[in-house]
Amino acid sequence: MPVLKFDDVEAEVVRPGLQRKIIHTGELMTVLIDFTDGPWDEKEPPHSHPHAQTSYVAEGEIIFYCEGEDEQHLKKGDMFYVYPHKNHTVKLLTKHVRLIDSFSPLREDFL
Amino acid sequence: MPVLKFDDVEAEVVRPGLQRKIIHTGELMTVLIDFTDGPWDEKEPPHSHPHAQTSYVAEGEIIFYCEGEDEQHLKKGDMFYVYPHKNHTVKLLTKHVRLIDSFSPLREDFL
Repeated sequence: MPVLKFDDVEAEVVRPGLQRKIIHTGELMTVLIDFTDGPWDEKEPPHSHPHAQTSYVAEGEIIFYCEGEDEQHLKKGDMFYVYPHKNHTVKLLTKHVRLIDSFSPLREDFL
Repeated sequence: MPVLKFDDVEAEVVRPGLQRKIIHTGELMTVLIDFTDGPWDEKEPPHSHPHAQTSYVAEGEIIFYCEGEDEQHLKKGDMFYVYPHKNHTVKLLTKHVRLIDSFSPLREDFL
């Protein structure tokens, strides 16, 4: 079935406070990420990858940091994108944050 | 700025009851779609495209139909994906439905 029903699929625990569920097809991957250990005093260390990324803030509020850009306060309903190879990161402002991250090509490191 | 703040960007009205906001980078596009004319008695006519698609149900409930698969009742938090060239469509079960659709490569017809 080309669906992921949230209640039927166990999340992958990446670390305490960070769980994810993944779908993918062709050269496209979408990752539902639930952070539950906010708010944070500090941002996560920035990282980069060769994949294009888009993100939708499905729950909560964050600060989004992207190399060469002003930091952005984003909340539920907002979106951001990340050019390939650009350093970026987030800081949680609320206890629960859900991000819907899409990548192309596939993040083979997530499979 | 590589962000789309929902409150700051006017939606594109595709037709009455269907609005969208778009971000894209590289070969990746994400489209925030707000349907406000549900529920529907009938599904939309199925369509297909050569792009891979993933979708997150951000608000509301739908029936998702995909060629060769059983129909699926999906609600907020659920996801689906569409193989390139597969016929698919949805039927709204609630007045408001928000889908976060991602495509690779870009939907040039949306630009």
